[in-house]
Amino acid sequence: MSTFGQYFRVTTYGESHGRSVGCIVDNCPPGLQLTEDDIQPQMTRRRPGQSALTTPRDEKDRVEIQSGTEAGVTLGSPIALRVMNEDQRPHDYGGGGKNIDAFPRPSHADWTYKEKYGVKSSSGGGRSSARETIGRVAAGAIAEKYLRVAHGVEIVAFTSGVGHEHLFPSTAEHPTQATNPAFLQLIDTVTRARIDEFLPVRCPDATQCAKMERLIADFRDRKDSIGGVVTCVIRNCPSGLGEPCFDKLEATLAHAMLSIPATKGFEIGSGFGGCEVPGSAHNDAFVKAPAIPPAELNGASSEPPRARPRLTTKTNNSGGIQGGITNGAHIYFNVAFKPPATIGQAQQTVGYDEAEGVLEAKGRHDPCVIPRAVPIVEAMAALVVMDALLAQSARQSARGLLPVLAQTVPVGEQENNLTKARA
Amino acid sequence: MSTFGQYFRVTTYGESHGRSVGCIVDNCPPGLQLTEDDIQPQMTRRRPGQSALTTPRDEKDRVEIQSGTEAGVTLGSPIALRVMNEDQRPHDYGGGGKNIDAFPRPSHADWTYKEKYGVKSSSGGGRSSARETIGRVAAGAIAEKYLRVAHGVEIVAFTSGVGHEHLFPSTAEHPTQATNPAFLQLIDTVTRARIDEFLPVRCPDATQCAKMERLIADFRDRKDSIGGVVTCVIRNCPSGLGEPCFDKLEATLAHAMLSIPATKGFEIGSGFGGCEVPGSAHNDAFVKAPAIPPAELNGASSEPPRARPRLTTKTNNSGGIQGGITNGAHIYFNVAFKPPATIGQAQQTVGYDEAEGVLEAKGRHDPCVIPRAVPIVEAMAALVVMDALLAQSARQSARGLLPVLAQTVPVGEQENNLTKARA
Amino acid sequence: MSTFGQYFRVTTYGESHGRSVGCIVDNCPPGLQLTEDDIQPQMTRRRPGQSALTTPRDEKDRVEIQSGTEAGVTLGSPIALRVMNEDQRPHDYGGGGKNIDAFPRPSHADWTYKEKYGVKSSSGGGRSSARETIGRVAAGAIAEKYLRVAHGVEIVAFTSGVGHEHLFPSTAEHPTQATNPAFLQLIDTVTRARIDEFLPVRCPDATQCAKMERLIADFRDRKDSIGGVVTCVIRNCPSGLGEPCFDKLEATLAHAMLSIPATKGFEIGSGFGGCEVPGSAHNDAFVKAPAIPPAELNGASSEPPRARPRLTTKTNNSGGIQGGITNGAHIYFNVAFKPPATIGQAQQTVGYDEAEGVLEAKGRHDPCVIPRAVPIVEAMAALVVMDALLAQSARQSARGLLPVLAQTVPVGEQENNLTKARA
Amino acid sequence: MSTFGQYFRVTTYGESHGRSVGCIVDNCPPGLQLTEDDIQPQMTRRRPGQSALTTPRDEKDRVEIQSGTEAGVTLGSPIALRVMNEDQRPHDYGGGGKNIDAFPRPSHADWTYKEKYGVKSSSGGGRSSARETIGRVAAGAIAEKYLRVAHGVEIVAFTSGVGHEHLFPSTAEHPTQATNPAFLQLIDTVTRARIDEFLPVRCPDATQCAKMERLIADFRDRKDSIGGVVTCVIRNCPSGLGEPCFDKLEATLAHAMLSIPATKGFEIGSGFGGCEVPGSAHNDAFVKAPAIPPAELNGASSEPPRARPRLTTKTNNSGGIQGGITNGAHIYFNVAFKPPATIGQAQQTVGYDEAEGVLEAKGRHDPCVIPRAVPIVEAMAALVVMDALLAQSARQSARGLLPVLAQTVPVGEQENNLTKARA
Repeated sequence: MSTFGQYFRVTTYGESHGRSVGCIVDNCPPGLQLTEDDIQPQMTRRRPGQSALTTPRDEKDRVEIQSGTEAGVTLGSPIALRVMNEDQRPHDYGGGGKNIDAFPRPSHADWTYKEKYGVKSSSGGGRSSARETIGRVAAGAIAEKYLRVAHGVEIVAFTSGVGHEHLFPSTAEHPTQATNPAFLQLIDTVTRARIDEFLPVRCPDATQCAKMERLIADFRDRKDSIGGVVTCVIRNCPSGLGEPCFDKLEATLAHAMLSIPATKGFEIGSGFGGCEVPGSAHNDAFVKAPAIPPAELNGASSEPPRARPRLTTKTNNSGGIQGGITNGAHIYFNVAFKPPATIGQAQQTVGYDEAEGVLEAKGRHDPCVIPRAVPIVEAMAALVVMDALLAQSARQSARGLLPVLAQTVPVGEQENNLTKARA
Repeated sequence: MSTFGQYFRVTTYGESHGRSVGCIVDNCPPGLQLTEDDIQPQMTRRRPGQSALTTPRDEKDRVEIQSGTEAGVTLGSPIALRVMNEDQRPHDYGGGGKNIDAFPRPSHADWTYKEKYGVKSSSGGGRSSARETIGRVAAGAIAEKYLRVAHGVEIVAFTSGVGHEHLFPSTAEHPTQATNPAFLQLIDTVTRARIDEFLPVRCPDATQCAKMERLIADFRDRKDSIGGVVTCVIRNCPSGLGEPCFDKLEATLAHAMLSIPATKGFEIGSGFGGCEVPGSAHNDAFVKAPAIPPAELNGASSEPPRARPRLTTKTNNSGGIQGGITNGAHIYFNVAFKPPATIGQAQQTVGYDEAEGVLEAKGRHDPCVIPRAVPIVEAMAALVVMDALLAQSARQSARGLLPVLAQTVPVGEQENNLTKARA
Repeated sequence: MSTFGQYFRVTTYGESHGRSVGCIVDNCPPGLQLTEDDIQPQMTRRRPGQSALTTPRDEKDRVEIQSGTEAGVTLGSPIALRVMNEDQRPHDYGGGGKNIDAFPRPSHADWTYKEKYGVKSSSGGGRSSARETIGRVAAGAIAEKYLRVAHGVEIVAFTSGVGHEHLFPSTAEHPTQATNPAFLQLIDTVTRARIDEFLPVRCPDATQCAKMERLIADFRDRKDSIGGVVTCVIRNCPSGLGEPCFDKLEATLAHAMLSIPATKGFEIGSGFGGCEVPGSAHNDAFVKAPAIPPAELNGASSEPPRARPRLTTKTNNSGGIQGGITNGAHIYFNVAFKPPATIGQAQQTVGYDEAEGVLEAKGRHDPCVIPRAVPIVEAMAALVVMDALLAQSARQSARGLLPVLAQTVPVGEQENNLTKARA
Repeated sequence: MSTFGQYFRVTTYGESHGRSVGCIVDNCPPGLQLTEDDIQPQMTRRRPGQSALTTPRDEKDRVEIQSGTEAGVTLGSPIALRVMNEDQRPHDYGGGGKNIDAFPRPSHADWTYKEKYGVKSSSGGGRSSARETIGRVAAGAIAEKYLRVAHGVEIVAFTSGVGHEHLFPSTAEHPTQATNPAFLQLIDTVTRARIDEFLPVRCPDATQCAKMERLIADFRDRKDSIGGVVTCVIRNCPSGLGEPCFDKLEATLAHAMLSIPATKGFEIGSGFGGCEVPGSAHNDAFVKAPAIPPAELNGASSEPPRARPRLTTKTNNSGGIQGGITNGAHIYFNVAFKPPATIGQAQQTVGYDEAEGVLEAKGRHDPCVIPRAVPIVEAMAALVVMDALLAQSARQSARGLLPVLAQTVPVGEQENNLTKARA
């Protein structure tokens, strides 16, 4: 399926070398102010050609709304978005076309697409192209707009590792970043504007950023590539989101993140490092929530104060999700990206005809996808939260019409009540 | 939603303290020999009370088929499975019931369930109980039976880490287990029977297993808990499975694994360590596939030889999936589990009434979930592969009726052709 | 798929001759008072053996809740329902079993099930048995309870035709019942209690009911069968339900009704007769809605007054749905049922072995399904409305958090606002 | 949701007055030859301005493929289709815009859209416009192409009623068309080419067609409108399609048909008239299938002979579906369309402001939708069959890999085997 989400449904289309790429966003709430200007900034952050470290393929990536809005307001009907493919050079990846026609690129999707579909497209891996992510970013921008306006949700991703360089490496004291005060402070306050001060790498620490930039440049110069880690924080997420059992919020986040091309891992909250921490230290004890949330005190949020759960937690090893359900604390997670498969170096491999040979890719490609992956991670996070929010809205507003029973909590005392948050 | 899968659909139900737990499996292929005896072994491997290291809650966990089979053969109609809840002590977790009624357990789902539903069940976290996984394991056993009979698929999970003890720790030489020969040899041959020789820990290495067992016993004795890592390998998976874009096979595996209670991370193939390996080393070069697959040479498989892709890869950093689609190589991945939230130690926290206090849980609980998580990981892996297989079967058999064109591969030359594998 | 609904999801299981039949209801709003006593009445109205006109198969059909409630209140988790199959005689339909093993019953599902699944079950048509509808009726009773408590929705079905006997036949003056005052008055006030005064036929007119009863008895005596029409009205349905385009409310109602065994047709509002009425007469002109809805004035409803749309229509040829969306007027529709396929008369046909022969069914069967179909139609109607309601709840509560724009209607002025209906 | 189908998924977008309308078709089998030329003919049959009897709104309705094909062959990836909206006059319907801004059109969707979304678009009913059906017709053309090439399926719809004029009216002898020899002969042989000889009405009988044309012209001249009935036949549909229980093929057909704007009813096979026929006459006795199907004997089909079920039925009251599953016989059904709501006559009604007034629509509109509805009915039928086919393909090819058991039918003897039909 090319559809993501059950309530806020996004269906994408498009290969790298067709007429256009895009998506249909179904079930966006009506009455949201929305124009191309709300969507374009993330498209631009994602697009290629941003620096000497990214592919020089030059695409304007201007998004056009086809339907679903009128006079800058969403109607509630499907919103179709389209971006033209302007710079098509189908045979560019493989030295005039011969190479890529003869060899499936190692660790790329050329071979598996042929196995799956029995058809070989000129671009090899079909939708495994990075251009497939355009529809995600466009749809994510709509979700984000709603989440920000209605709930003050803030989603910020940044580069936290490139190769062996890590912003918050695991240490004996802090086997997981979840207990590292520097990390916790960063995710409390970091903004996209701040992240973009560290272009082209998008790692919000001048020293580490410089090291990472050199590392990427080294790999580029050697016609090689390198992977890394993107970290993402979601602030002000309402509590109560996530469907127990199969659609826990961490499960749908993991699904979303591992669906991004080139990803190899996902960890939430304390993550893999958390396995090494005793339960007595790992458990997040409850505390009474402060009357005013920290984000408002430190001025990071320009939004009006919102209703909050009455309890919060002293620590946040859980990463804002317990039993698959959000508790109102920051949600944060890491996503691992492998080194890009398309490299300029000669590679000894075998061709579609089973004969050995050497593949030398001449095309345009990124030595490291991490910087451009940042807005994609943000977009997928927004789609996950938006979908969970609509699921919970349906439940909570349906419950709100029932009489209050002894066993149930009056809706007025449920501070996270999605239907009253603005009241 | 309490449903997993789009083609092979599993819907589960049941809290720890209701009348029964179970599931409905929809769209199981007709004509499969299936009785309770095919399902019970994994139920028994999952059930509590297996050793001094697991919770003494004593449940027989006998599964009963309600529908969908006749004379031991599946009819193609929904298969309902039911397991009685025999040993119900709703107030046991919290010292006679008072404690758990007053305090949401830290890092458990008690608080978030109340936030989500506005109803407080006596068992607190409702479906976040480990008993919710019974339906998954039962359904997974059906998927596994089909996959084994029809395709010779083998799914084996094992304990690879408990606390700081790791079976294949990251080293300078091998930042990822993907390049560790000992790891690669293990996943080539390991069986469930072999894993169960290492009860109660299920780590297939005598030395490490003993260390892990002591570690878990220590935590148990201190009324504390500890996390760990389960590794899983899927062998003989047909190539061509996984839906590009949102439902890449690694994405649905990640979704499945992070939906298991207490999980914090997932990595496939080279995983997080793979971020540090240059692309030139990380890329899996293609080689001509051997005429006889390794599993048959070394005798690990009792199944007849099956059709294979013509190409395979020299290395397997990809973990058997490229561009979201299986390539026929072993699929392997790690799942991180946090330390169980319910511990015997006193915990300083606040109650539902916002007053500070001390929670001391008196109930029965596991100091480490890893050993019992092994069959759950296997079950979820089976559900993911089965669902992807039916999706691809629909596509491939639909394509098989079309005339062969210049751009397409004749179905007879597609060795992974799901419809001809037995011919 | 054995699942109905996208928001309020019902998955059923069970053949006529397995251990049990039942269903899982997912996404029921939490906080609803619910016990078996809320479900049993409709089970009893549906069950066989109610009169000399229905099959003497004797099933108690006692429903048991397995999960999802505690202390008589829904938790928000899946509600599993189970009904035992007590009276199993698998070979009863075909004269000691020989006949039905040799012959696919004409117009039954025996042959097509074999074509579809390649497996022949002893009961022939597998899930095409009327027992499959038990799960629907049980799930429908839950939906109805919610709709009644939260919105005062009333759903009443009745027999309007048996063979050539019609309660409201098409006439030159009234080509459609939509313009027949007697019909309009009936649907305004009819209740289930009133319908059940006309047992066993359930046609709310003494004269017609008697004729229909005689007609059915005649067909029974001749070992033959006869079809008929069930009419259903839904009162007090909130406006704004139904998803434009593919999931218009009339489309999901049609889907629901044609999924009931033995149905051949569906018409809503003016229906087939409406094709013959000029648009100028067929259009339902708007009028200002009365301050107090008619149902409260005439005392048919015991519920408190609810918010209503500001406009209503003078006539109701639309049957309460315009553009696929409810307008708050009565929804009414007809469902055609064919004569039951299983008859006692000898039938000349051919067997599975292609040889001609005579089939004489000796089993227990209904000469007319109409009376027992009444609660099934009500149940499916409830499932459709409930699903549409949750879809709209999600949308409307999401919209309610956005600032009011010039183009949008303030939520306070939208009288149908689902989240405020009780305020 | 704006998505139709679970396996062959179509998502549409677009209002009548946005930039474009279109759809994404997901899961089309790869390897199908497909260009715009395969899609355009049905677009052209649907488009307005075809005759003096249809709306003069002039749209070229040229479809453009955006993705999913290369060199005229489907890749297996999503196929996006787009049609520009060229002739936009948003305020045309209501006399310079004032009228339609003030009055919701009676029996149109203006009022219910506002109730649902709380936003008023300039075109009133948003997606209830006939232009919404463009995406359906385009997607249906792709499904049809596959069905024709792979299975020789033929889908032909035609006008069978306008107002009180009926091609096959119910009579005492033939209460249902299912027993009318003239009807049965027509559906055996009728083609689209033949239907289009009867433009503009598309009723394949010269006498009736002339009467209907006059009737429509009369209503047009009186600024009024009239409804009618479209009949559709599906020939050569493989047996075994349709999912028992909720997704019976007649249920998904009914869903599809009632989702077309302006529809009020659906009946399959003997339909409403079949309720009056005794079971003994209504049952379709089985007979041995002829070696050569009738369609080939009479030359109506240019396709090669295909495998067929071993049994067929003497009569076809079932309309090709028994127990929700196709039996290989012709599937035929009727769809009722109401008179179009937009008429030129003055209508006494009330405005959004609750004040009484007179609405006079000055826009372009059809006096009868029947002729243009023909290709829309065909398209929706194709989508239903295609979806059911992929569901059954997945099942049957999965079953084909299991060993043959005593209770099961060897795949080689199942003549409808979807995976072998061409062998």
